[in-house]
Amino acid sequence: MVTKLKRFLIGRPMKSTELAEEKLTKLKALAVLSSDALSSVAYGTEQILLVLMAVGFSALWYSIPISLAVLGLLLVLILSYRQTIYAYPSGGGAYIVAKENLGVPFGLVAGGSLLVDYILTVAVSASAGTDAITSAFPSLHEDRVLIAVFMIAALTILNLRGITESATILAYPVYLFIFAILVLIGAGVFQFATGAVPFTGTTYGAAVNGISLFLLVKAFSSGCSALTGVEAVSNAIPNFKAPAEKNAARTLMMMGAILGVMFMGISLLAYWYGITPTAKETVVSQIAAATFGRGMMYYFIQAVTALILFLAANTAFSAFPLLAFMLAKDKFMPHMFMMRGDRLGFSNGIIVLGVFSAILIVIFHGDTENLIPLYAIGVFIPFTLSQAGMMKRWITLKPSGWAVPFLINTVGMLTTLTITLIFVVTKFSQIWMVFLFLPAVILAFRKINQHYRDIADELRIDIATEKPVVKGSVIVIPVAGVTKVVSSTIGYAKSLTDNVVAVYVGFDEESIKKMEAKWEQWNPGVRLIVLRSRYRSIIRPLMKFIETVEWKTADTDHVTVLIPQFITKKWWHNFLHNQTSWLIRAYLYTRRDVTIATFPYHLQK
Amino acid sequence: MVTKLKRFLIGRPMKSTELAEEKLTKLKALAVLSSDALSSVAYGTEQILLVLMAVGFSALWYSIPISLAVLGLLLVLILSYRQTIYAYPSGGGAYIVAKENLGVPFGLVAGGSLLVDYILTVAVSASAGTDAITSAFPSLHEDRVLIAVFMIAALTILNLRGITESATILAYPVYLFIFAILVLIGAGVFQFATGAVPFTGTTYGAAVNGISLFLLVKAFSSGCSALTGVEAVSNAIPNFKAPAEKNAARTLMMMGAILGVMFMGISLLAYWYGITPTAKETVVSQIAAATFGRGMMYYFIQAVTALILFLAANTAFSAFPLLAFMLAKDKFMPHMFMMRGDRLGFSNGIIVLGVFSAILIVIFHGDTENLIPLYAIGVFIPFTLSQAGMMKRWITLKPSGWAVPFLINTVGMLTTLTITLIFVVTKFSQIWMVFLFLPAVILAFRKINQHYRDIADELRIDIATEKPVVKGSVIVIPVAGVTKVVSSTIGYAKSLTDNVVAVYVGFDEESIKKMEAKWEQWNPGVRLIVLRSRYRSIIRPLMKFIETVEWKTADTDHVTVLIPQFITKKWWHNFLHNQTSWLIRAYLYTRRDVTIATFPYHLQK
Repeated sequence: MVTKLKRFLIGRPMKSTELAEEKLTKLKALAVLSSDALSSVAYGTEQILLVLMAVGFSALWYSIPISLAVLGLLLVLILSYRQTIYAYPSGGGAYIVAKENLGVPFGLVAGGSLLVDYILTVAVSASAGTDAITSAFPSLHEDRVLIAVFMIAALTILNLRGITESATILAYPVYLFIFAILVLIGAGVFQFATGAVPFTGTTYGAAVNGISLFLLVKAFSSGCSALTGVEAVSNAIPNFKAPAEKNAARTLMMMGAILGVMFMGISLLAYWYGITPTAKETVVSQIAAATFGRGMMYYFIQAVTALILFLAANTAFSAFPLLAFMLAKDKFMPHMFMMRGDRLGFSNGIIVLGVFSAILIVIFHGDTENLIPLYAIGVFIPFTLSQAGMMKRWITLKPSGWAVPFLINTVGMLTTLTITLIFVVTKFSQIWMVFLFLPAVILAFRKINQHYRDIADELRIDIATEKPVVKGSVIVIPVAGVTKVVSSTIGYAKSLTDNVVAVYVGFDEESIKKMEAKWEQWNPGVRLIVLRSRYRSIIRPLMKFIETVEWKTADTDHVTVLIPQFITKKWWHNFLHNQTSWLIRAYLYTRRDVTIATFPYHLQK
Repeated sequence: MVTKLKRFLIGRPMKSTELAEEKLTKLKALAVLSSDALSSVAYGTEQILLVLMAVGFSALWYSIPISLAVLGLLLVLILSYRQTIYAYPSGGGAYIVAKENLGVPFGLVAGGSLLVDYILTVAVSASAGTDAITSAFPSLHEDRVLIAVFMIAALTILNLRGITESATILAYPVYLFIFAILVLIGAGVFQFATGAVPFTGTTYGAAVNGISLFLLVKAFSSGCSALTGVEAVSNAIPNFKAPAEKNAARTLMMMGAILGVMFMGISLLAYWYGITPTAKETVVSQIAAATFGRGMMYYFIQAVTALILFLAANTAFSAFPLLAFMLAKDKFMPHMFMMRGDRLGFSNGIIVLGVFSAILIVIFHGDTENLIPLYAIGVFIPFTLSQAGMMKRWITLKPSGWAVPFLINTVGMLTTLTITLIFVVTKFSQIWMVFLFLPAVILAFRKINQHYRDIADELRIDIATEKPVVKGSVIVIPVAGVTKVVSSTIGYAKSLTDNVVAVYVGFDEESIKKMEAKWEQWNPGVRLIVLRSRYRSIIRPLMKFIETVEWKTADTDHVTVLIPQFITKKWWHNFLHNQTSWLIRAYLYTRRDVTIATFPYHLQK
């Protein structure tokens, strides 16, 4: 039943050799890996305008130089990550770059913040996308948590099915979004150029009272939220078709160009149209309404905007499992993140990401907007570390012509470091959590690593001298009566050793006498030991008995507890049996140095 | 950890011989068993007035004859259940009486509807009590589901601690409620008699337009909701101190008298004061306000009313586990309901009741008022069957002087049958569910019974001829490398049989070659079999291999799969190990006729 459901949802299992077929083409990679970055266009300009509006309408012209500054930063980041792709063709991103160049601690800081950040990406994107839907259909407002969780579940299943298949399904909305925004910008520019829509913005370069450097810097850092997600490509190079680095680099450039054009276009139109941010309508919505009126084209733009926000979450579904895999390979995360599932994706990473982000949605009742600054700083910390790592690399390796790349990374590092510090200064009340759970995550990494190393030491064997030691054996069988199951179990035990003991726990003298008489009459060739229980517990007297047996025989014998267990024909029959055998196993599991064996008895009815 | 929490919540385990000490005195039994019945006073009169108000204020005088009729029915029920107590001193109530006299099918109908009804009692009482609290503190309204679920959790824990202890804790509110309502009635009657509060009711016996027999009958049946819970005493006779029957009968009479006085008193005061039911204030609240003003005494009455509604839920916590025990003893419910817990209560019944009623609360968002008619019919079906059973008993046994008791039961049966039919006719839209899940519950009883009988047949052994059969043995050990754990496991296996095979599942040729070389070098005296897995699954090749071994050796050998398992020192270490061993066990559990043994390896760090 479970297996069938799994097959239906996830598809047939695939061979390891099919892995190559699962690689991404450039166009598909653009869809899978860039939706996070591109969807930022939906709110980047708005974030800048919101800060400037604190001063007044006349300050809005600053959005143009600030947007240009963001564009400049985008260029720096793209160039810088392009260098990373060629330097680390096996994929890596901030974790690998920081670890290899700056040392493990910095690597863990980068890895930890990215890991947390991907969870935030999914939660923020899913709830923002849900907001877009519920804005269009207010009657759904009550069900927003449900919708967001449903979307996350859908993304989880798609990703468990495998990368290429999800790309095929998810590619179209990304292309549609790019198409829609480019058409919007084109039509807007055309209408503005022909004078169909008059210029209503503020005078460019006009002096503005009350503007301060702090405010401009804050507006700039807010605008940098448009850049979240550009690192996704460099993390996922191994997912590309060969030649992977080249394809990844081209995809990155393509994404950067599209993102830059869309972001600058939206900012320009917003300025020309004199648009001010309001609580009720997004900037993109206002621009679309001004350009096309509230007709079909307007709703189309709104719909694809909502859609791409959901797909932004999908970027994290590609990146998180890969990062978890790398951390697991270095023994900083549990081994289970290294296992590829039936469909070749890292299933455990996908599932953990889905579960944690869904929990965030539920805890915050779908209002995850407050997590956006947290999410942004979670991106800029690894940005900074990654570039610092690249700087170190250039200095160490000194390849020919290393000055220019070194300069690019230096500029990038200083800029992203500055932005990180601006975030800390201007938005501390919203991001202080990062200083709690980043150390917590890193501590967990350390603890896990320590444990794996301890265990490896403990289990290491000297194959020349240490050989298996053979001892004697005692088998203890708890019995509740004289039945076919008991007979089979005793038969099995006697085929392993002659040292078999049956144990009966009696609650009252009457049943004990009856049992003893019946056993004697049956005479199965095994001694029956009767334990009296005044507490009606089968477990406690049994434990004591086993303890005694263990203590008496520890040097000479292994102790095995053999539990007869019904295998029922229907699942609900389990409620009718086996409670005691489960209890015995649960108690024995951690407490005793005995082997627990379950003898299956298949019920026919 | 879990054990410590359990001890803290539930207390130390108790001996079976302490059972006698856990018996109830009459006064305590009154508290434990009568809160359900007594709390009905809080809404009984109101239910009558609500129906009469459909005609108009002038019809309210009918509440007096109707209340008298309810009082008459109460008398009949009390007398009738008194007879049951003496006839069935080992406790029984409707299930036992109907089963023994009318046959198993009727017994199951009675038992099934009571079982469902107890769950409804808990849900309805807990949410009604919560309503009383949130009416007083409107700011808590949002948290009503939480409050109700918390109350249920608290009751569950109290009951797991044991009956007497819960009685001590729960007795005072019941006494306080009785005291408060009697003081209210006394003060009200005094004030009315002295003319301090004038008579404002309608003329008694005045002709009323639009009144119909249907309406009066409906009002009567609504008033019968004041009688829910009177059966609790006769179900719980074995919980009484010796002489149990006599004490139970006296408790029943005491309860009947108190209930009668309180119900009639409230009805009279409501009539005298001319009180009409409103949506915002309960009838009891109006009477209390009219008598004392909105002072301390008023709030005291409201508080104990809220409290006793929670305690009404507690009645079900005494009755449900006992009924489940009796059904389990007759093999209509799973065995687990027969086990007494550490504190001598039937823990599983208590827990199941708590969980199911909490689920009802959550599903209905705490608005369980619609369940009240369902709850009432769930009481009157077993009432009717119980009395019919007693009639049959008198006819069959014909003890001296059986005519009067027979008459009492006949009157009772006819009345409760009539009320049941009135419910079906006048409130079908609210109770149709009963005709769905009553048959479902009875079907489940039947299925469980059939299964247990089948299994008993299947497991029966002829102790003269059937003895344990000894065969050979093969032990299969899945290994992942050459470590201390593998060495110990092999040592253990070799002490049981010489026929031991180690199995290694390899994903690629490189690791397979390495493993084979290392094994040869180590030479533990056990053959290594290498399986190749193209799907990266350890499970599937292993299953196939075990299947083959089983098929080859089924006649001569038992097959045992011995799984080395890490026993970690800290619970979270489990996330770092054992995934594969759990998977193997889960797959083997239902599918193969092999014994699964777990060899524990205690990690030191």
